[in-house]
Amino acid sequence: MPAKDALTERYQDLLSVYLKAKTETTLYKGQQFSRKLLEQQISPEDLVSLHIQVMDELFPDMSEEMRDSFDFLLEAMIGYGFAYREHQSLRDKQQ
Amino acid sequence: MPAKDALTERYQDLLSVYLKAKTETTLYKGQQFSRKLLEQQISPEDLVSLHIQVMDELFPDMSEEMRDSFDFLLEAMIGYGFAYREHQSLRDKQQ
Repeated sequence: MPAKDALTERYQDLLSVYLKAKTETTLYKGQQFSRKLLEQQISPEDLVSLHIQVMDELFPDMSEEMRDSFDFLLEAMIGYGFAYREHQSLRDKQQ
Repeated sequence: MPAKDALTERYQDLLSVYLKAKTETTLYKGQQFSRKLLEQQISPEDLVSLHIQVMDELFPDMSEEMRDSFDFLLEAMIGYGFAYREHQSLRDKQQ
C-alpha cells in the first residue's frame, strides 16, 4: 500500500477527533484546515474527494446509496473547481 | 411547512434520479446544476448545505456520526466560500 497522502491523513485525524468530541473547537479545526488547503491550491472538488476518501476509511459499511450520493456531490462541485481556477488566474494577473 | 426552496427541490430530484439510474448522464446533471448555482452566486458551502438538507430528506435514518461528518465538511468548505466571494469581487472589478 502506498504511503497515505499527508493531507488526507490530517483531515482524517481532524474529522475523527471532531466525531468523538463534537465541540465548537474541534469543528473549527475544519475551517482552519481549509485555509491550509487553499494555500496549497487544492480545489473545492479536491476537498470533497478527500472527504470521500476519509469517509470510505471511517465508514467502510456505508450503504451503497450513501456512497453514491457523494459521487453526485463531487460532480456538482466540479463547476466550482472551474470558478476556483479562474479565481487563481485573475488573482495572478493582478499581482 | 414553508414552501421548499426551488433549488433544493431541483437538487433532490436530480440526486434521486441519479441514485436510481446511476448512469453517466444522470451524474453529469450534477455538474450542469452547479453551473446554475454559480449563475445565482450560490457559494460552495451553500452547495454543501443544500446537499446536507437533501440527504436529511432522503436518508432520515442516517447515523448520527454520518450526519455529523457533513457538518465537518461544511465547516471545511467555509474557507472556499471566502475565496469564492473574493473571486466575485475581483471579477466585478475587471468588468
